[in-house]
Amino acid sequence: MNINVPRGTEDLLPKDTVKWQAIENAYHRLAKIYNYKEIRTPIFERTELFQRGVGDTTDIVQKEMYTFTDRGDRSLTLRPEGTASVARAFVQHKMHGLPEQPTKLYYIGPMFRYERPQQGRTRQFTQFGIEAIGSADPAVDAEVISFAMESYQTLGLKSLKLVLNSLGDHESREAHRQALVDHFKPVESELCGDCQQRLEKNPLRLLDCKVDKDHPAMQNAPSILDYLNEYSANYFEQVKKHLDHMGIDFVVDETLVRGLDYYTHTAFEIMSEAEGFGSITTLSGGGRYDGLIQDLGGPEITGIGFALSIERLLMALEAEKVDLEEDETIDCYVITMGEEAKYAGSKIVDQLRKTGISTDQDYLDKKMKAQFKAADRNKARLALIIGENELNEGIANLKNLETGDQKSISLEEIVEKVKAEL
Amino acid sequence: MNINVPRGTEDLLPKDTVKWQAIENAYHRLAKIYNYKEIRTPIFERTELFQRGVGDTTDIVQKEMYTFTDRGDRSLTLRPEGTASVARAFVQHKMHGLPEQPTKLYYIGPMFRYERPQQGRTRQFTQFGIEAIGSADPAVDAEVISFAMESYQTLGLKSLKLVLNSLGDHESREAHRQALVDHFKPVESELCGDCQQRLEKNPLRLLDCKVDKDHPAMQNAPSILDYLNEYSANYFEQVKKHLDHMGIDFVVDETLVRGLDYYTHTAFEIMSEAEGFGSITTLSGGGRYDGLIQDLGGPEITGIGFALSIERLLMALEAEKVDLEEDETIDCYVITMGEEAKYAGSKIVDQLRKTGISTDQDYLDKKMKAQFKAADRNKARLALIIGENELNEGIANLKNLETGDQKSISLEEIVEKVKAEL
Repeated sequence: MNINVPRGTEDLLPKDTVKWQAIENAYHRLAKIYNYKEIRTPIFERTELFQRGVGDTTDIVQKEMYTFTDRGDRSLTLRPEGTASVARAFVQHKMHGLPEQPTKLYYIGPMFRYERPQQGRTRQFTQFGIEAIGSADPAVDAEVISFAMESYQTLGLKSLKLVLNSLGDHESREAHRQALVDHFKPVESELCGDCQQRLEKNPLRLLDCKVDKDHPAMQNAPSILDYLNEYSANYFEQVKKHLDHMGIDFVVDETLVRGLDYYTHTAFEIMSEAEGFGSITTLSGGGRYDGLIQDLGGPEITGIGFALSIERLLMALEAEKVDLEEDETIDCYVITMGEEAKYAGSKIVDQLRKTGISTDQDYLDKKMKAQFKAADRNKARLALIIGENELNEGIANLKNLETGDQKSISLEEIVEKVKAEL
Repeated sequence: MNINVPRGTEDLLPKDTVKWQAIENAYHRLAKIYNYKEIRTPIFERTELFQRGVGDTTDIVQKEMYTFTDRGDRSLTLRPEGTASVARAFVQHKMHGLPEQPTKLYYIGPMFRYERPQQGRTRQFTQFGIEAIGSADPAVDAEVISFAMESYQTLGLKSLKLVLNSLGDHESREAHRQALVDHFKPVESELCGDCQQRLEKNPLRLLDCKVDKDHPAMQNAPSILDYLNEYSANYFEQVKKHLDHMGIDFVVDETLVRGLDYYTHTAFEIMSEAEGFGSITTLSGGGRYDGLIQDLGGPEITGIGFALSIERLLMALEAEKVDLEEDETIDCYVITMGEEAKYAGSKIVDQLRKTGISTDQDYLDKKMKAQFKAADRNKARLALIIGENELNEGIANLKNLETGDQKSISLEEIVEKVKAEL
């Protein structure tokens, strides 16, 4: 019986990886432009990290983690997201002590959640994300949002919508929380079971409920924006002013909430407005967090970040019919006839490669015509033809496959002549 | 309590990732030059794949795999190596049917083995590897060996040793196997327990035993090279002739064996001969395999590949004191004084970035002198200084931090002027 890829995962074949490489190259470049440096954390972490850093009550931790015990009886978990690991590494390596602050980091790599597979949602998926840790300057929030938008725009996406909200600081959130409890308590019995629990534990998440979203009490639920204290309101104004200066359009949506207690102040999401993108329109999200670094044993400092799924990005590129730049040509295809020419061919192929010229040859003893076909299939720019007679004379024929021009060249000056023709 | 990285794994911090990026860029480029295309397979596979594709009796499968059960009760394993996954994908996607053969693939990514952590050996490590599947041409063997050597040479390593052997085809191996049994049977009781078992199951692996390596019977054990049939001997001669033509030095070591039954014909290893490299001198290995593709449900075709560990490569680079090229400069650092200048600064930073100029600014309300220091720490080539007065006049000062030259420029033409100075 054949063994297939595990359910909810997929292979990326060469036709796919050229796209992925284009995206990753763009993101490494973009990070450099915004002066974020790459960090790589392990694929798995101690399970406790996510219980503490993502939250015991979240769906991710309760239902979606790949958790297992290693041969040393440690509970390990394949990372379901990137922020907890980056925060862990920040604390472990005492990065707040580095001279340059805030610490601006990015990551790109696979994440794992046991979810029902559907289009654009796989159990192994790939996140690109950034974290700026150590500054409470609203200009950093604007920078992170600009970076997030540019992650799509630099690849050519246009139908984007930026949605913004403020969750305020701790004091503001407490005031809002109390207002939510006061508002929903009278209709508690009409709400779903989950929402009844949320009313106790985390009333903010009521606003996110898919079951009760049409309940009349949702329509006039207290808005966090009415409960921001002076510092929080002022902070939000400054973020918006920076975005205005930068010419970055946004809409404020007071119902935009992020699940965790860590989230404070700025929260944002980027949606695709492309036709035919499908029902899940959120491409990525991010926001500011307090307390996470401290909870993992670090100093009391604040951070902000965002993360996007590359799988979902690819769907958006497809919906907007954006073609990524893919270079699939090779420089030279070496065609040989006869056994001795074959050895000479291997040598020449190797010589060309060692000077950086992408080159290939036939390995199936094809006839000359079929070798020319292979050169075409490989989108070679040049063909170098070596027969027994030519070999004895110390020459080869160099054919430019774009123009059809052909010339005889000495075997001694092959590298120079091929280079000159490219 | 702080949570650290799991035992046997490590974080790669920005000072490390610049090196990794340089290596990965070199390898993507090298693969392009040799005309290999990237494939990415999932981090975990069905456990059965490795039992079949790596081998039930190997240490990897018996002792070192990270195996777990998912929430759907499937047995999954974090991949311990790359070849089995690539072979699985080759079969699943029927890649032998693609017009261009052999199928030439490369991969780069994390692998997982539960081993005793030591220098250059971590439980999560990173392999770069290639596979050429679908041709039994000795020129492919030479190509793969050339690629393997070039993986080190392109980064500047020089103290390398290439060790070569042939394991022959199935018939040759059977003859050799019988000769090994005949040779060791009389001294069976003097061998270690493992070797006594190996004598039954896989006598070739006796030659690899670390316990019995000084037993007298090892010294004159039958060499595979004396049992190669005509086809196998001829195949090996052709591989060596190709390498000679290419000017690739090698030594033949008839004791070089690869563990699995799949391995046939060419086997090779690359060692570091750098002083101070440590006791494990093998950098990478590879070889030809028959039967693997067929065993996974594909056609009866042969392949050859090699894989290297990037962690071990880094040790070799350090031993030979090779510095990788790392670009750690940024183009421009924007320095502002005063609140309105700060908003203008954010806008200008954003403008510069959107034209591809790497730029940063201060987010900690530092004084001007400290901002200049930050520009230096960030290795900025230019500083753009904006104060309240300058802002009112619509100008800024552009300082070249390499030459010290400073000039006044209009805010309207900032992008052009900065570009001109870079």
